Parts: sequence; structure tokens; C-alpha cells
Amino acid sequence: VQGDDAAVRHAVILAGGAGTRLWPASRRSRPKQFLALGGDETLLAATVRRARGAATGDVVVVTAADQVDLVRAGAPGVSIVAEPVARNTAAALGLAAVHLLARDPDAVIGAMPADHHIADEAGWARVVERAFAVAERGDATCTIGIVPTRADTGFGYLELGASREAELGVPGVRAVARFVEKPDAETAAGYLAGGRHLWNAGMFFVRARRLLDDIGRFLPATAAGLDVVAAALKEGPAAAAAEAARIYPGLPAVSIDHGVMEKASPVLTVPGDFGWSDIGSWAALAELRTSADGGNTVIGDGVIVDGEGNLVVAEDGVIAVVGCSDLVVVRSGDAVLVIPRARSQDVRRAVEALTARHLERFL
Amino acid sequence: VQGDDAAVRHAVILAGGAGTRLWPASRRSRPKQFLALGGDETLLAATVRRARGAATGDVVVVTAADQVDLVRAGAPGVSIVAEPVARNTAAALGLAAVHLLARDPDAVIGAMPADHHIADEAGWARVVERAFAVAERGDATCTIGIVPTRADTGFGYLELGASREAELGVPGVRAVARFVEKPDAETAAGYLAGGRHLWNAGMFFVRARRLLDDIGRFLPATAAGLDVVAAALKEGPAAAAAEAARIYPGLPAVSIDHGVMEKASPVLTVPGDFGWSDIGSWAALAELRTSADGGNTVIGDGVIVDGEGNLVVAEDGVIAVVGCSDLVVVRSGDAVLVIPRARSQDVRRAVEALTARHLERFL
Repeated sequence: VQGDDAAVRHAVILAGGAGTRLWPASRRSRPKQFLALGGDETLLAATVRRARGAATGDVVVVTAADQVDLVRAGAPGVSIVAEPVARNTAAALGLAAVHLLARDPDAVIGAMPADHHIADEAGWARVVERAFAVAERGDATCTIGIVPTRADTGFGYLELGASREAELGVPGVRAVARFVEKPDAETAAGYLAGGRHLWNAGMFFVRARRLLDDIGRFLPATAAGLDVVAAALKEGPAAAAAEAARIYPGLPAVSIDHGVMEKASPVLTVPGDFGWSDIGSWAALAELRTSADGGNTVIGDGVIVDGEGNLVVAEDGVIAVVGCSDLVVVRSGDAVLVIPRARSQDVRRAVEALTARHLERFL
Repeated sequence: VQGDDAAVRHAVILAGGAGTRLWPASRRSRPKQFLALGGDETLLAATVRRARGAATGDVVVVTAADQVDLVRAGAPGVSIVAEPVARNTAAALGLAAVHLLARDPDAVIGAMPADHHIADEAGWARVVERAFAVAERGDATCTIGIVPTRADTGFGYLELGASREAELGVPGVRAVARFVEKPDAETAAGYLAGGRHLWNAGMFFVRARRLLDDIGRFLPATAAGLDVVAAALKEGPAAAAAEAARIYPGLPAVSIDHGVMEKASPVLTVPGDFGWSDIGSWAALAELRTSADGGNTVIGDGVIVDGEGNLVVAEDGVIAVVGCSDLVVVRSGDAVLVIPRARSQDVRRAVEALTARHLERFL
């Protein structure tokens, strides 16, 4: 389903995240995308590798200025767009679009987070191929909606509209009737049973020109700032960086989902079912890596005596757990976390307590 | 109650222990006596300090040959008697007695483990003074029996006999009717209620000559070996060390309690109530160091959110515990232990599991 006009497909990897949900493995100085949570590769390196297979043009990584060196070391050869400060994904994706448009007026962008895990990479590649094709042919924004496997309340959902297969010649493509905020448990169970809702996984495929037009329509302050950067870019990358440093702090911090996609039209989606996980908690990692050893998952050197359902992660050294079940125990660098698996959304409570006790040096 | 004949009182500190009950803080290369579990000092350093206050002669530390450097560094200035291999306390104490007798034929020994904690040091000193006096005047072995504070099944007990106060002029001294092995829970509860049983804390006060005579009577093979060392000692310490290296591996490994004291007569005791703990488990340490913070005890940098009754020990780095109670979490060097406080006697299970998984390097 290669696009008729054969526009060049560029991957934009959003690597600005600085979450604390996987503390102590993720730190301020080493966010989740720089961790090898899925196996041997860092999540960023795996994302870049997949992106290189899907893109016909550039692979651009948008990241925080103070993480450029980490990206360069972990993903050699990518183009890097540095954000002077973090201003969420609308500004980040807009900044990448400005840079790509300057060298390719017909650029098509496939935007994807740097910190997700994909189990079935061939399946992912097939779906991405379709989403790129939709972005080219339909002059629309195309998302990838993940077929839900549980009634999760931690994600936004896409409500499916009419099929657009016949019109676009792309298998599975549907209109997005609306974006739905994170639901409560009952609503999520209804979505799972109903089969008309997909998880919004933050992957968007769109022509760069159209993206910037949409930003201009829904986020005019962001667009005005990006225009200044685009003008400076004609004088070279140094001038653009200087203008970005000047205007970026004043941009609104808003997500591309909330700021643009929920309002834009048409938005289409290609459903995907390729073992996707955002590894949004230690419990999610445990599900990803479950071993056969009594339901315990041990990453690194660890022993578990009289216990099951534990996740033990020893980045170095060893962890011994005796007589405990359904516990998460993580040792990473200078910090150890112990939390029940069912409470792994509450890692932020540990982060808050460390902050309150003036122990931020461990964050 | 200084002894009438003013014999010189020597302290013999038994520092040969290599237990694993406080793993991962205690390791093969750093047994419990080298840990600062009671506060800022190591248990050995605190024992030496107390011993120096109580002894009028030498302070001798008996330790394993491969721990001589640790002792020298941790307790500068003590006399060190090195055991070529570990052969339990009867041989260790006998070897120390041989060395002391060579320079003081009237030596009185106060033997004490290196790895116990004493909260009330002044109270300890008063009781030790009495025990030394009994050893001198009564030509008997005098133990210190700890007044029990709970129905503990982890200790041997001393059953009290008749008072010997009038005869010896030492307050509180009683005959030991018999040594009792570790009791079951019901028996221990009866001991606690009855008031006629004391904990055997492994502290013995006896003339060196009498101790060697008792060893000769009850452990003739040990005595024969020690005689060889004693003879060699007349030619100097190097000759004695060479003979010890030769004969020591052949000596029976038996405790002074079981091998000698349970059979010797008379054995007397002075009851003591000075905040004694052998810190035989992480739970015991938690009792020793309990803080006011919701019943949690935190040693080092740690935060506890939504939990109580936890013991958190971070020798370095930080430990965060969220949503757990009555748990022991210890981080020491390259190892982390997580175990319910009520199961802290089962640390050996972790040690066994590490051994089975060929992870002995962490022991």
C-alpha cells in the first residue's frame, strides 16, 4: 500500500519523557526511554531500529537539550532536534515538523513515543505501513489504535467510526468518531466488551504541512512561535536554535492529543494488535516479562524463597526475597524500591516522600 | 568486691563467629562482630571497650586467622590469638587460656562473645565485677545469666540452684542447678513465668588453670592438643603458631558450654539485667533500634509510605517502601534482602537459595 505520490516518510521519535513511574530505574538523569526494559536494547534504541525499518526518509529524535548526549550515544546516526525546555508533545512534534519541512516540503511524519515496547515487530511494521499510506492518500491524520486486552483505566481511548477501507484501499482503516479521556473502571469494562474502542497509543501519521496547519488552527500561540523558528532556519541551524531557545519557554505545554488531534478532522485510525505496552508501571513490566518460575519474574541476579507473583529487578548485585508474594522489589544504582505489585501506580508516593525528606539526590 | 588475692583479670573475647543470620550485612568476609549494629561502633569495638574497663590485665581476642587484619584494624592494641581453622569455643577458649597461662600462672579469664549488644554498660560492669570476684574466691566457673524478658526459644537456659551469697560475699550469686537446651515455646513460657531460669549468654569467668583442667577432664583430645601448643610456646610464639596450625584441624569442634560447662562443677552464676541482646536476627535488631516513627525503624536513608512495623536498613543509597508492613528490608553492599519480620529466623533460607543458584559470591 505504498502511497501513489511516493512522499518521503520520516519517523519522529518523541523522547522528551521524564516520568517517575519506573523509579528507581528511571531517574531525572536517565528517563525510561534510556532503559533496557524490554530485553537487551534500550527502549529508544529499539524504537529507532523499528523506525528505520518503516521510514523511507529521516529518523528524527526530539529530546530535551540536556539529553542530547544520551540520545547520541544510545542511537547513533539519528537526526536530533533539541528542545530548550520541555513543552509537551504539541510543541515537540511541531518543532520536528518545522525542521523536516525545511528540507522536504512534502514530508510525511510518523510520530511515535520513544519509550514503548512492541512484542510483535513484524505486526507493528504492517500496521505502520498502512498508517503512513492513509496519511498520504487521505490527507488526514492517521493514528494507530491498540486493540485493548484488558479494561485499563490508565489510557485514553479512540471510539471507532465508519470504515474507510473502500475509499482508501487500506485494510482496517476507520474513522475516529471521538477521543475519549481515561475512563473509570466500569466504562473501561464496557469499552473492552463493546469492541468499538481502541487504546490511544500516541502514534500519529500525518503530512508535516497538515500538522502545522492544524497547530495553527488549534494552538495559534504555538504556531506563531514555530513560525519564528522556521524563518530562522533559513539562516541555518544555529539561528534556529537561538530563536527556539528564545521562544520555546513561552509556548503552552500541551499534548498533541489534547491540543490538536481531539479537535482535528478527519482523524482516521488503523487498529493494531502487536503486543504493545507503554510499560507504565512495574506491574506492566512484570506482565511483559513474566517467567515460568512460580509466577515470579526475576531480572538480574535474584532468588525468591516461599513466594509467588513477585517482580524482582536487580540491575546490579543480588536481591533475595523470602516469604513474600506479589511484591515488586527493584534495585537500581543507589536506590531500592519495595512496593506491592497491585500498588505499583503509587511509585510517585515514594518520589514525593523522598522529595519531602530532602532526598531528591536519589530521584 | 575485688578478689582478696588480687589475681589479674584478663578478658578473652571470642570473635570467631561467621554466622549468616544477619545476611546481607554479615558476610563470610565480614561477620557480625565487625558490624556497627548497635550504633556507631562495631560490636567488636564496643566489646573491647567494655572489656578494657573490666579487665585489670590483657584483652585477648581469639579470631580466625583470616580475620586477624580486621581485628587489628577494628580493635587496635588488643592481643590477638589466631585460630588456624574454626573449632568452636572450647578450643578457642582453651587456646587463649594456654597463651595467658604462659605469662600469668594465676590468670583469671572473663570470656565473652564479640558480637553481643549491651544497652546498660554500667550495669554490665557491675555484674562482671561480681562474676570475676566469684571466679577468684570460689575456685569455680561463674557464668552471667540474663534475666529473661520474653519466652525465647532461641537460647539455652540456666536453671538456678541455691544462693551462694553468704559464702562468697558476692551479691546475687547462685549455683547453676543445670544447663537446659533450647526449650520449646511452652517450656520457655514456663521458664519466664517461674523466675528460676536465666538465659545462657555465653559469658564465663574462671581461672585459666581451672578451665584447662576442666577441658582435660571432659575433652581430653582437645587438652592433649593444647598441651602441645603450650609446650611449643616456651620456644616462642612462632613455634606455638606452627604447632597450632598442625594440631588444630584435628581438634573436636565443640562449644565450651556443651563440652565443658554443662559437665563441670561447681558452676555458679550472677544474674544480669543490663539490656543484653545477641542481635540474633533482623527482628532482634529492630527491637533494639525501634524508633518512634509509626513503629518503623529506619537505619540510613529510607522512606516508608503507608506502612508500619518495618525495619529498613540502608547501609548506603536509599530504600523506599510503599504499602508494606512488618517487613525487613536490608541493603548492604551488593545485596538486598526482603523478608517479613516474623520470618527473620529464615534468612538462612535465602543463603541456601543463593548457594543452590551458584551465587555464593554474595555470601
